[in-house]
Amino acid sequence: MSTSNDTLQRLAEVIATRRQGDPDKSYVARLFHKGTDAILKKVGEEATETVMACKDGNTQKIVYEVADLWFHSMIALAQFGLSPADVLQELERREGLSGLEEFAARKAQQRERTGE
Amino acid sequence: MSTSNDTLQRLAEVIATRRQGDPDKSYVARLFHKGTDAILKKVGEEATETVMACKDGNTQKIVYEVADLWFHSMIALAQFGLSPADVLQELERREGLSGLEEFAARKAQQRERTGE
Amino acid sequence: MSTSNDTLQRLAEVIATRRQGDPDKSYVARLFHKGTDAILKKVGEEATETVMACKDGNTQKIVYEVADLWFHSMIALAQFGLSPADVLQELERREGLSGLEEFAARKAQQRERTGE
Amino acid sequence: MSTSNDTLQRLAEVIATRRQGDPDKSYVARLFHKGTDAILKKVGEEATETVMACKDGNTQKIVYEVADLWFHSMIALAQFGLSPADVLQELERREGLSGLEEFAARKAQQRERTGE
Repeated sequence: MSTSNDTLQRLAEVIATRRQGDPDKSYVARLFHKGTDAILKKVGEEATETVMACKDGNTQKIVYEVADLWFHSMIALAQFGLSPADVLQELERREGLSGLEEFAARKAQQRERTGE
Repeated sequence: MSTSNDTLQRLAEVIATRRQGDPDKSYVARLFHKGTDAILKKVGEEATETVMACKDGNTQKIVYEVADLWFHSMIALAQFGLSPADVLQELERREGLSGLEEFAARKAQQRERTGE
Repeated sequence: MSTSNDTLQRLAEVIATRRQGDPDKSYVARLFHKGTDAILKKVGEEATETVMACKDGNTQKIVYEVADLWFHSMIALAQFGLSPADVLQELERREGLSGLEEFAARKAQQRERTGE
Repeated sequence: MSTSNDTLQRLAEVIATRRQGDPDKSYVARLFHKGTDAILKKVGEEATETVMACKDGNTQKIVYEVADLWFHSMIALAQFGLSPADVLQELERREGLSGLEEFAARKAQQRERTGE
């Protein structure tokens, strides 16, 4: 029996559950309740905070702010009926055209050579 | 089955490989070559484009721009020796405290009840 | 003596003139030609660059980036038939309610006392 | 006796006065008290809100958000010992090179012709 370790998918499910919650108690429910502009404002804010954390070179803060940025962009995705899987598919598609396949091919050759 | 964690990890490896490439030929190598400010400028740009795509309600564009935003934040992570796994761990940690564990517990109970 | 209101007004006139120019020769004409999203992308970009210049504490760069930010927000204003005078009026109105009038009153008292 | 109508300069003086105030009572004092990152976060936020107001095509909101953006960039300037005059001088300098002088020359000719 496999345990799939799909953090973003699980997080999307948490977001979907919380969205149904009480806006007075849940941050996520409150953000959806306030609507698109409130959500997008957070995306802009977290991008600025990511930039500042990187300028500080504070790795702990960078991880924290990128987590915030991804979390709020997942809320934006949910607001438009989209999921992280859509984004990952786009990333795979894009890379597949010029990169991931070439990369995979190279790794495969390497594996053959090195017997990995 | 490939998980989002796998996709992001693979993408991080592609970025690491391209980073070593020729800045004249590879977009990723060029961005690393230009340095931190050029990378962060892209993070800011893609956040703005995500906001605009959402305001247009254009789901295809939203997916495309969030992909760009995540891609460039992964380049920022790499610039500071970080990986998407660090961000996913932070998201799990955070949610684990108040949400994911509760969620997982609820799902487990549900599975027991329904025999999933 | 020229005031900031004069400078911004004159700059708005320059923008209006250039807007009629050849997009192949004029940066401003080109930006209007590309449309609202291209203009807004620049506003987002220049805000990010302002943030980065401030994090560097580089005063020359800060002046340069804030100039860029104000310039591109004036192009956005023009795109919607607005002028810097509208913004200055809003700033005066706002401050007038709680601050500028109080400030002016204080300055007047001070002038009376000091005979300035 | 002339009354110079210099909104931004006057606003810079208001900001300088409020900066000395009680952080518990004054928004401006509080923002300076929180420091550079809090100020820059506001610059990023207001840029995002300007972008959203423009996407809505809501002119009243655009004026309001650009006023917020300029106000907070003036707080950032003050944080680094700079003034709006520095930014206006840079805008004049820049335009002077290719635009404002040419524009002024053209206006002067026009005035001569029309007897304005």
